[in-house]
Amino acid sequence: MVLTLVGLGLNDERDISIRGLEAVRAADIVYLENYTATLNVDANRLERFFGKPIVLADRDFVEGRAEAMIEAATTKRVACLVVGDPFCATTHADLYLRARQRGVTVKVIHNASIMSAVAASGLQLYRFGETVSIPFFDGGWKPVSFYEKIKKNRDNNMHTLCLLDIKVKEQTVENLMKGNNIFEPPRFMSVNTAIEQLLEAAEMNNDGSAADILAFGLARVGADDQAIVSGTLGELRSADLGEPLHSLVLCAPELHEVERNFVALHRLTQSTS
Amino acid sequence: MVLTLVGLGLNDERDISIRGLEAVRAADIVYLENYTATLNVDANRLERFFGKPIVLADRDFVEGRAEAMIEAATTKRVACLVVGDPFCATTHADLYLRARQRGVTVKVIHNASIMSAVAASGLQLYRFGETVSIPFFDGGWKPVSFYEKIKKNRDNNMHTLCLLDIKVKEQTVENLMKGNNIFEPPRFMSVNTAIEQLLEAAEMNNDGSAADILAFGLARVGADDQAIVSGTLGELRSADLGEPLHSLVLCAPELHEVERNFVALHRLTQSTS
Repeated sequence: MVLTLVGLGLNDERDISIRGLEAVRAADIVYLENYTATLNVDANRLERFFGKPIVLADRDFVEGRAEAMIEAATTKRVACLVVGDPFCATTHADLYLRARQRGVTVKVIHNASIMSAVAASGLQLYRFGETVSIPFFDGGWKPVSFYEKIKKNRDNNMHTLCLLDIKVKEQTVENLMKGNNIFEPPRFMSVNTAIEQLLEAAEMNNDGSAADILAFGLARVGADDQAIVSGTLGELRSADLGEPLHSLVLCAPELHEVERNFVALHRLTQSTS
Repeated sequence: MVLTLVGLGLNDERDISIRGLEAVRAADIVYLENYTATLNVDANRLERFFGKPIVLADRDFVEGRAEAMIEAATTKRVACLVVGDPFCATTHADLYLRARQRGVTVKVIHNASIMSAVAASGLQLYRFGETVSIPFFDGGWKPVSFYEKIKKNRDNNMHTLCLLDIKVKEQTVENLMKGNNIFEPPRFMSVNTAIEQLLEAAEMNNDGSAADILAFGLARVGADDQAIVSGTLGELRSADLGEPLHSLVLCAPELHEVERNFVALHRLTQSTS
């Protein structure tokens, strides 16, 4: 019948739009995709707020192509809650296409995404180049393709938004081999870890000046206790931004006047570094 | 006391978030910035929905540095409604800074912006390069700096979001000279005009192949009657996307598989061209 992809925005249950809330209230089944991103609240709080049970759609569910959800949507009103904006993660574009191919009407209710809310740093959004993802290094596994993209953006005098890795419902190799249904606690990359890895990638590329790059660390954007600090990567390396989610923005080499004023406004002071 | 910049999202009064609605309900004064963008509904409908009078902040107001609003916020709870996300237009970054400099607490309630909702095209958001603005050509005045930026994005294999010009509260030179307080009707650039101007700019640069560039035309994104069509610039040149607001996206030269599927899904058919 209909699948409505409802963006939840950035922070908690109150970031849904009226349009989104109406879609949830009208739905026969409500799913929550909590694999590619996460809110600062848990599903129980959403259930109480919406007055409906919520089915959790985790990584297995989504990578299993969410067939159960699409199947349900052929005969029922299904709402799928997505943190941020429904289309900002590639996963949901694919979901949209497959539902359409099954003849399901798909509606999208947009919301704030870190991809646009990053403008809260004061850096002008139109000057951002390609967005990069920084994955957790794991022992010898150090994928550093993000470094080349950052370099390209800087060569083009553009800012770079770095999305930081989230590990939800991961299994140890041991548990995976034994078939134990035991999962590790969720891990969210901090700005500090991102900077360590970035400097390591720079070193591999014989770039000794990366610690001088001006950047913004952002945490819990949109929440009452959001944190935005600016400084060089060297300075931000040890900054404490508190709880997840964190994002990192590398400034373009040249800044406009308003941008420079925001760097000054949010500059990490000695006392908090 | 406090200035809350409240994003209204893309379409109508129901796109505000619960958090945003609470801020509006709690405010002593509510302004609506309706100069840099526009909703598909008028201020009266917002007033009825919020149950509050709304003060319109137009271009004169905003370019006059919004002193009255900042002054009010030193002693009152002021909400300033902004179409889309509050920080996506440079104007509001400047407003934020000036309010902070006056000692006003400034809160920001994020919402969907065309800068992220453009992902509804199915093109992957992280692959967008610099965003460009296409201004109305006016007689001999043909500013074409957008062309170089589009070219640069395409050389980097990136998509380009083109924001199309809006003229609100413009005066003719005659009325301006005579001091008549008479304003022209608002004008919103269509995808068609944008393409005409883009092809003209390409011609000035001796680029004869621009009509073959693959693109998406988007109209009223987020509304029930939104339109998304894909095709070459030559094909989209005469496509009818209906009422404002329109946006144009130029695809990167190379597309991923999911992106190609979206191009096919939205491809302009012969019958509607």
